[in-house]
Amino acid sequence: MIIVLKPEATPADLDHLTETLKAKGLSVNISRGKERTVVGAIGDERVLTDLPLSVYPGVESVHKILQPFKLVSREFKKADTVITFPNGVTIGGPEIQVMAGPCAVESEEQLLYVAERVKKAGAKILRGGAFKPRTSPYTFQGLGEEGLVHLSKAREKTGLLVITELMDPRDLPAMMEHTDIIQIGARNMQNFRLLFDVGEVNKPVLLKRGLSATIKEFLMAAEYIASRGNQEIILCERGIRTFETMTRNTLDLNAVPVLKSLTHLPVLVDPSHGTGRWDLVTPMARAGVAAGCDALMVEVHNNPEQAFSDGEESLKPDKFDRLMEEVRKVASAVGRFVA
Amino acid sequence: MIIVLKPEATPADLDHLTETLKAKGLSVNISRGKERTVVGAIGDERVLTDLPLSVYPGVESVHKILQPFKLVSREFKKADTVITFPNGVTIGGPEIQVMAGPCAVESEEQLLYVAERVKKAGAKILRGGAFKPRTSPYTFQGLGEEGLVHLSKAREKTGLLVITELMDPRDLPAMMEHTDIIQIGARNMQNFRLLFDVGEVNKPVLLKRGLSATIKEFLMAAEYIASRGNQEIILCERGIRTFETMTRNTLDLNAVPVLKSLTHLPVLVDPSHGTGRWDLVTPMARAGVAAGCDALMVEVHNNPEQAFSDGEESLKPDKFDRLMEEVRKVASAVGRFVA
Amino acid sequence: MIIVLKPEATPADLDHLTETLKAKGLSVNISRGKERTVVGAIGDERVLTDLPLSVYPGVESVHKILQPFKLVSREFKKADTVITFPNGVTIGGPEIQVMAGPCAVESEEQLLYVAERVKKAGAKILRGGAFKPRTSPYTFQGLGEEGLVHLSKAREKTGLLVITELMDPRDLPAMMEHTDIIQIGARNMQNFRLLFDVGEVNKPVLLKRGLSATIKEFLMAAEYIASRGNQEIILCERGIRTFETMTRNTLDLNAVPVLKSLTHLPVLVDPSHGTGRWDLVTPMARAGVAAGCDALMVEVHNNPEQAFSDGEESLKPDKFDRLMEEVRKVASAVGRFVA
Amino acid sequence: MIIVLKPEATPADLDHLTETLKAKGLSVNISRGKERTVVGAIGDERVLTDLPLSVYPGVESVHKILQPFKLVSREFKKADTVITFPNGVTIGGPEIQVMAGPCAVESEEQLLYVAERVKKAGAKILRGGAFKPRTSPYTFQGLGEEGLVHLSKAREKTGLLVITELMDPRDLPAMMEHTDIIQIGARNMQNFRLLFDVGEVNKPVLLKRGLSATIKEFLMAAEYIASRGNQEIILCERGIRTFETMTRNTLDLNAVPVLKSLTHLPVLVDPSHGTGRWDLVTPMARAGVAAGCDALMVEVHNNPEQAFSDGEESLKPDKFDRLMEEVRKVASAVGRFVA
Repeated sequence: MIIVLKPEATPADLDHLTETLKAKGLSVNISRGKERTVVGAIGDERVLTDLPLSVYPGVESVHKILQPFKLVSREFKKADTVITFPNGVTIGGPEIQVMAGPCAVESEEQLLYVAERVKKAGAKILRGGAFKPRTSPYTFQGLGEEGLVHLSKAREKTGLLVITELMDPRDLPAMMEHTDIIQIGARNMQNFRLLFDVGEVNKPVLLKRGLSATIKEFLMAAEYIASRGNQEIILCERGIRTFETMTRNTLDLNAVPVLKSLTHLPVLVDPSHGTGRWDLVTPMARAGVAAGCDALMVEVHNNPEQAFSDGEESLKPDKFDRLMEEVRKVASAVGRFVA
Repeated sequence: MIIVLKPEATPADLDHLTETLKAKGLSVNISRGKERTVVGAIGDERVLTDLPLSVYPGVESVHKILQPFKLVSREFKKADTVITFPNGVTIGGPEIQVMAGPCAVESEEQLLYVAERVKKAGAKILRGGAFKPRTSPYTFQGLGEEGLVHLSKAREKTGLLVITELMDPRDLPAMMEHTDIIQIGARNMQNFRLLFDVGEVNKPVLLKRGLSATIKEFLMAAEYIASRGNQEIILCERGIRTFETMTRNTLDLNAVPVLKSLTHLPVLVDPSHGTGRWDLVTPMARAGVAAGCDALMVEVHNNPEQAFSDGEESLKPDKFDRLMEEVRKVASAVGRFVA
Repeated sequence: MIIVLKPEATPADLDHLTETLKAKGLSVNISRGKERTVVGAIGDERVLTDLPLSVYPGVESVHKILQPFKLVSREFKKADTVITFPNGVTIGGPEIQVMAGPCAVESEEQLLYVAERVKKAGAKILRGGAFKPRTSPYTFQGLGEEGLVHLSKAREKTGLLVITELMDPRDLPAMMEHTDIIQIGARNMQNFRLLFDVGEVNKPVLLKRGLSATIKEFLMAAEYIASRGNQEIILCERGIRTFETMTRNTLDLNAVPVLKSLTHLPVLVDPSHGTGRWDLVTPMARAGVAAGCDALMVEVHNNPEQAFSDGEESLKPDKFDRLMEEVRKVASAVGRFVA
Repeated sequence: MIIVLKPEATPADLDHLTETLKAKGLSVNISRGKERTVVGAIGDERVLTDLPLSVYPGVESVHKILQPFKLVSREFKKADTVITFPNGVTIGGPEIQVMAGPCAVESEEQLLYVAERVKKAGAKILRGGAFKPRTSPYTFQGLGEEGLVHLSKAREKTGLLVITELMDPRDLPAMMEHTDIIQIGARNMQNFRLLFDVGEVNKPVLLKRGLSATIKEFLMAAEYIASRGNQEIILCERGIRTFETMTRNTLDLNAVPVLKSLTHLPVLVDPSHGTGRWDLVTPMARAGVAAGCDALMVEVHNNPEQAFSDGEESLKPDKFDRLMEEVRKVASAVGRFVA
């Protein structure tokens, strides 16, 4: 950590600061410039995380040198993390996986129909919400545990892996039984207790980036999970909040190569939530793959007009077939492949 | 709801749309312009919330006419909500209440010392975190239930009301025992299950605006609580996320008069989290009162240099004394008062 | 235009409003719902642009039905605009054009060296700033007219077309002589007088999206140019300002398919300014092409370490060679081609 | 400047870096930590502004120690700048000045009527746009020089000082003749050539913060003006662009105390443009004064319904009278005064 002193800092200020640093086990390098004195704290600056050095007397600014995340960092583990499921499906390897399905599980028939269609098109993982975070308390909140049971059945009948969102720690036992990947939604990215909970189970977690989360905060949320032992984490870019209103969110594809450079974890792109418009899903899915993502998540509904939620951004099965064809070509152009 | 058709919409598209609207119990007004046909759906448009009309064939855009919140709206209840505690303290009346105390409860002595000081300065409510949402899993996460017990004792000894944050539904029973106001933090503003939970208890809730929550979403989160019966809700503006980095967040004081016009609920301003800088807390507290807020929340610490969290934005007790004096004058200038 | 009245609006308010609309030549449709009365203004709502209807007595909200841009809209002209230069180079057709070169023209030799390299790699247009908008007044501001002359020479020697930025109307005559495309920078996107100026000349204009410009404002800026007669406009997405700090800007690739649906004008992506990091330029260039852009702009410098500006985001010629190879493959995967 | 090396940086990388720094006249301090080597460049780091050190081999990150602005900084000049006009009016002293008037000059009569009213209410400076930056090319663009003449006349008749916006360098001579303060609008905050132009004249400049300008960029724009000699600059906070849509912009009052700490220049708040809603102007004007601003700018129109522009945010003269009364009380509560 680098601490810059104000021009008017006194020798007593400097002493007080250096003693504080030494008391934390760090050694100190002092560099006196013409305009400012600069203090370098040598050692693991993470011991200083809780210390508000910027309000110490005489301190002008504080500059951190190390990233605050550790276990999830590329520095800690150079090689890409590849998550391998019992049926051999991998996420993070050369194959780009596609997760597809309805926003919400609405009925067994609906789910099965969509599952068969997305499977035929090449998806190996079925998505579907049983517990739905909705902006209004007066709208459909998901089928709950009944939805989990439908997912289990669809998994059984189709051989697809299933992923669904966990909103409440009290639902975790049921999730452990019925799903292959636990999704933590964007609105819960900093629900730290929930992160600790899924950090202690033995099941891959898909962590969605919060609407206004910086990439650093996103990785710190992943670090929460990893710090409790579960390191099978998939990072999902699903759009951030900006001033633009033509799209529901602004899918931030820059995050894909940035994350790939900072972390060993696989990166997934969700163009459905990322844009909120079905007509943008296919071009942004292609772009996500071209940017280097490891997986895609796409909302597919048999009849978007009648969807209980997110009909605006859902593709009909025929359109999803075409998305898969187009994505397949782009994957090949960047040295990857899609089933 | 107003639905605008594309120039190329067919009569069949129009029929399909109007039948859908009528099936929902709405009547229909069709206005054919030179450039567009416009369909008005007459009746309670909230029955359409789940329907993705914007992807219906021939539809160009959809315009909602009513706000999506109801119970918390000024239209539903004209008069200001005033929350009255058993000891006579009110929030939402002419008196501006100040909640003050340390970011985190660190020990019984610390809490008691700060409690006595803020009480002497005029605060009637003591804040202090027992469960702390921290960006890093490696930092102090709060004393947990022990912290709640310290708060209880401080309440007993000082007569102050206490407020603390709830992060996990499993802690709700302990909260009910030890605190007077339940705080829902910014990161949990859309933790909808938790909102339902606190909507079912008989205790005032302070709901903090999420970092990237629009005012409409903020009010919808309050509506979640109100929809379950608990209508004693205090809305807290505590800074939004913008591109500016000189402040940790951008305290959005515009939200104060906007909220006062849209809702009957009391509005509180938190200049400590809103700016992240102790030197901005006093001017922004003054400005919050001048903008029309009903309450303030201020972090005060006996020794910010050694604070376990948020030392950067905490005031020392002496500085808090001065803040109270200045706020008192501004309150008086706008026809309110501070104890 | 749709005007929603407040519940408490009086008959006199309604009369006053409808008379105002009729006086503007519009006819009126009144729809009385249970909760609100809604007034539809039938005719060309653009006559109402200057009228602040939202503050008329009894008015609750105003909803526009038509987009405010006209000449640049896809509705006005269905077919893609293809700009064709005297040497046969096209922008907006099946070939994806690449504009490349140094951020700033630094010397004749530098420019010529880079020009030869980018030409060899497949670029057909040379970029290079003669007038540089810099955040500090104490840094290199460009060679000015001398830079224009170097560009002219490079054009002569290599046969490349050249593009450079216009910052001041007083430089327009020199620009007309020395350049093939006039660039309007992001900071001048709403320098409306300058837009009118380039709207009156007979030379293609590349208009960069402002850092905080919505897509609608971006198209209105293009409309400014088009309204004066010059309809050869290339729209450039170059990153918007968000809260994320890992990238200098957030390249908004969502804008590519959105723009292609709203306007007939060609769309270019600038991954160099869009990200501010050379290591992100190639993946984001690939992604831009996959998203459907018509052209790319890339900063290439012989020696980024010594660049007078934007060295952080400039590619060395060898890296640019590889970018072109990769982009070529993605272009082919989406049915386009790169020379 | 502090340069942090990557763990894998070689001795050659370090040598290359230190030689570069020494060649620029800086001395070097090297601190070798367990995880990183850190290089401190001692001397005036502004000589490094143009150097892209972050892309030097082996460099991980670069941290600037000094603010990039100099002449406008509080460090350069401790005492507040007070601008004094020939008629004795001051900006930046204990008196809070109010600039008021119509968004656009529409006619001589309109301007005179509003001028008399705002003067009577206590304003000493008349605002009114002769050249109007409008988002649409099809709307009223201002009366141009005729508007300037009206302003001159109003000044003569009322004794008010006048301020109006400069959009184009070619209008500067006329501005010098007819106005007392030159306004640079938000959209031109980084029109650097225009900033240099007004930096060379002998007349106070009101510089508006750009919609997405950081405070640092805002001060650098002021530095552009100051660097050419004109140091009579008033900084205007007028709202930034965020995701919130209930207000046209988000008036960022945090900027007031932040600017007052960083610069000696006076700070003005414009609640009219800052919110875009007339009903928010008065509370936000009060809040601006409570936050510590030195001046206010308020749009006042005799008949907002018929205003040629910005009718939504204009106050009627009666409402402006009340605003002045309320602002007067708040000013007094914070130790300032309004005429």
